[in-house]
Amino acid sequence: MSDALHTLTLLDVVQEHRRSYPNRTALVQEGRRYTYADLEDRVNRLANLWEGLGVGPGERVLWLGQNSLAVLEGILACASLGAMFCPLNWRQSAEEIAFVIDDLKPQVLLWHEGEIGEAVRGARELAQWKGGTWIHFDDAGPDGYEALLEGADPARKDRPIDVHAGTLIIYTAAFGGRPNGAITTQSGIMAQNVNIMLVQGLTADTIFLNSGPHFHIGTLMVTLGVFHAGGANVMIRRTEVAVIAEALHAEKCSLAFLVPKTIEELTAFNADGRYDLTHFRSAAMPSDQYSMMGYGQTEVGGLSTWAHYDRKAISIFGRSSPVAVNRIFDEDGQEVPDGEVGEIGVRGPIVGLGYWNRPELNAHRTRFGWWMTNDLGRREADGSINFVGPKVQMIKSGVENIYPAEVEGCLKSHPAVADAAVIGVPDPRWIQSVKAIVVTRPGQTVDEAELIEHCRARIASYKKPRWVVFVDALPRTPAGPIDYAALDLAHGGGGYPGGKDYKH
Amino acid sequence: MSDALHTLTLLDVVQEHRRSYPNRTALVQEGRRYTYADLEDRVNRLANLWEGLGVGPGERVLWLGQNSLAVLEGILACASLGAMFCPLNWRQSAEEIAFVIDDLKPQVLLWHEGEIGEAVRGARELAQWKGGTWIHFDDAGPDGYEALLEGADPARKDRPIDVHAGTLIIYTAAFGGRPNGAITTQSGIMAQNVNIMLVQGLTADTIFLNSGPHFHIGTLMVTLGVFHAGGANVMIRRTEVAVIAEALHAEKCSLAFLVPKTIEELTAFNADGRYDLTHFRSAAMPSDQYSMMGYGQTEVGGLSTWAHYDRKAISIFGRSSPVAVNRIFDEDGQEVPDGEVGEIGVRGPIVGLGYWNRPELNAHRTRFGWWMTNDLGRREADGSINFVGPKVQMIKSGVENIYPAEVEGCLKSHPAVADAAVIGVPDPRWIQSVKAIVVTRPGQTVDEAELIEHCRARIASYKKPRWVVFVDALPRTPAGPIDYAALDLAHGGGGYPGGKDYKH
Repeated sequence: MSDALHTLTLLDVVQEHRRSYPNRTALVQEGRRYTYADLEDRVNRLANLWEGLGVGPGERVLWLGQNSLAVLEGILACASLGAMFCPLNWRQSAEEIAFVIDDLKPQVLLWHEGEIGEAVRGARELAQWKGGTWIHFDDAGPDGYEALLEGADPARKDRPIDVHAGTLIIYTAAFGGRPNGAITTQSGIMAQNVNIMLVQGLTADTIFLNSGPHFHIGTLMVTLGVFHAGGANVMIRRTEVAVIAEALHAEKCSLAFLVPKTIEELTAFNADGRYDLTHFRSAAMPSDQYSMMGYGQTEVGGLSTWAHYDRKAISIFGRSSPVAVNRIFDEDGQEVPDGEVGEIGVRGPIVGLGYWNRPELNAHRTRFGWWMTNDLGRREADGSINFVGPKVQMIKSGVENIYPAEVEGCLKSHPAVADAAVIGVPDPRWIQSVKAIVVTRPGQTVDEAELIEHCRARIASYKKPRWVVFVDALPRTPAGPIDYAALDLAHGGGGYPGGKDYKH
Repeated sequence: MSDALHTLTLLDVVQEHRRSYPNRTALVQEGRRYTYADLEDRVNRLANLWEGLGVGPGERVLWLGQNSLAVLEGILACASLGAMFCPLNWRQSAEEIAFVIDDLKPQVLLWHEGEIGEAVRGARELAQWKGGTWIHFDDAGPDGYEALLEGADPARKDRPIDVHAGTLIIYTAAFGGRPNGAITTQSGIMAQNVNIMLVQGLTADTIFLNSGPHFHIGTLMVTLGVFHAGGANVMIRRTEVAVIAEALHAEKCSLAFLVPKTIEELTAFNADGRYDLTHFRSAAMPSDQYSMMGYGQTEVGGLSTWAHYDRKAISIFGRSSPVAVNRIFDEDGQEVPDGEVGEIGVRGPIVGLGYWNRPELNAHRTRFGWWMTNDLGRREADGSINFVGPKVQMIKSGVENIYPAEVEGCLKSHPAVADAAVIGVPDPRWIQSVKAIVVTRPGQTVDEAELIEHCRARIASYKKPRWVVFVDALPRTPAGPIDYAALDLAHGGGGYPGGKDYKH
């Protein structure tokens, strides 16, 4: 257990804020306001409720819902139990959600109705894991989230916990076709919080509109930083522009997670000025959420470098933040000379515990004593680090990462498909769109619409191909793997987040 | 040993800055500029030199000098060895310095000539501890600091160290008559660094004039924060106004440690505008160094709360910084209600290891699982913490703390003195001046001048009484201790840093 004299926990922060800011708003959701005292009371009840349901140190709680105050209070409750909270991407298919349920084997599963209810019910059917307790957030009856919370023991219990154990799991990095749950520790969250405070200028006066998805670290790292700074988090379930405008106006939000496209829509929507957006002072997040702030990834709980704007090129680069060191390594774990491309390795308190239930992958990624990010970078002559791109081909659609292997696997599960490859084609609105190049089995036929529908039914809708092209054979490099560069050239691929100068 | 994947050291920071800021100035001293590469090279040489002199994990290096680049590079070298660096208050007497040498038993003792050489030589004579190697910083010959550094092995060695072990020792808290060495850990320094970055807005562009003493945490915490942020530290040996004006001008300093008195002198000195001070943007530090930034103490490596200016009264108060929690306790370790005075307790990564070589005192101060600060505070209705004053009577002369017991002990060592008490009298320039109330032994006589000289010869000059008053007996409370409130009333005492409403 951690040395309490020299350690702070997330529960310490909420207990301290209750004293320091007795009347401050910690959370707003659907017009309801919660002070830090309310938040601590809810967290204590949640922790006691979940403890009764078997959530102890190392156990998992899965959130199958849209943005919600339940995500922040769930993380805090898990932190106080030594357990782990996983907010899952709700845009996934029943089959994808079922995969995570079986991977994570959560003791408690919380879910939202609405757009996600059908997929959740499907996943519950499909999943082998039947051991968890399901709690319905939207149920206003005696078995719903709020009623269970109100009925739970409100006692504050100081449980001895290890702050270096996992607290947050976010699924990402589906390089091999299936996503992996990146684990962040409580001590890592505390370190990342001050990092985000520094880079975003967060204070107790910050009012943050949680208008990016909670299942992405790009939003959630700010949510946690604002909490730690004593500011207010405003939760909205969906990110329609009307909801955003109303929340920015009503809550006088000073910060939000908005991509340029949404800012444009917001400006058009509010052309008549009926919403007062003058408190909103933050810049737009670019579509790639890190390029304005620095380089980072889910596996390190957010930002690892800070962007420095002292060079002409606007790119994803930066210098180590105060809570991390970053180096560029060759395949043998030797630092490469400045100007040469290598894999970015990170060390420091923000580095997580790798992926849930993936001991071999974790051993591989920490083989040099650094967390190897699977991203390529280059240190420039001025000392800054330029993010070159992922080591594997990754397609970027809006803020979503699409791993070709995942889409290719889905295509190949169709009986008429012999082989398939997926590339990203530049898209003026979404950065890239997915194009599939497919080889059919001899004697079989299938058309574009059928394959797109096949994917839509099985994986998250944003991952489905927009176009399907049929070819006789896929080009391959002399060594055997698919030659994606040749496919890009032949089929209009390009616009990958890191440019073209990375290894496939 | 620490888990290197999840831990950063001060040496990691200097190695990272060398890469990130290849040509940036890390240090300036006497017109010589040192990049971060130079700094790392010097630190590597120092560590190798000292390791050869027996400085290993847990050993101590003592700095008996004025402000110097040797303090920063010495802390970094000790950090890389797992050893501890102690910058001692050079304004002390030979006897006081000898006490620390014997308390600390350092393996290496570094010293400055000039105003301090005589006291150092006296201390070297007086001290029982003869086990350390003395290195003369000002000696330009082959045995001097620079020559030894140049001759040392320049190899970078990665030594496994425990970041939770002590790294810095600063003597303070002479409540019992003798000072105690407060130990700060490397992990505590790292946490305090981001704290200071946040509260002072430090960046890689900060150029900090080290114009407060290195033996006070108020300056040194900023020195270390600027280093961690990748900024530049400008070292001046003494704080004469001409030296300060020249350094602010020549180095375009953006930040300095200056009390209002010095700011006034600086303004007068530069009335003709011959020095360009336009880069200097920091506010004056008030005479009590914490009141503008928040509450803190040496034992927690600097700031524990941040000042919040949302109340009318300008006082020493604040709310917990992100790296600490602060509570107000009664004598049984129970939290007192808001509005009541109690002792401030602190928890968090900035909390040090207590005092060197004082196991009983440390056990007492951590008896409730919190670091009990020996300072009194009160939580106000708005949640902020107001610093009420030290639990013991403490006199404030400029930035110096004077503990009555220390001066009283010196007075009582005079053969003619039977009893003595010391109070603080308001002083328009120095906050307070020391007044002694003395009872002579029957049949003995001694005059004011002789007692002042007796103290001047034995303790730091700023601690000597300015006035001595002779009385027949000291007033005592019914319980027996000296009644300082009655003495203040009778002899004009007052203006103590925390006001009058504290327990003696």
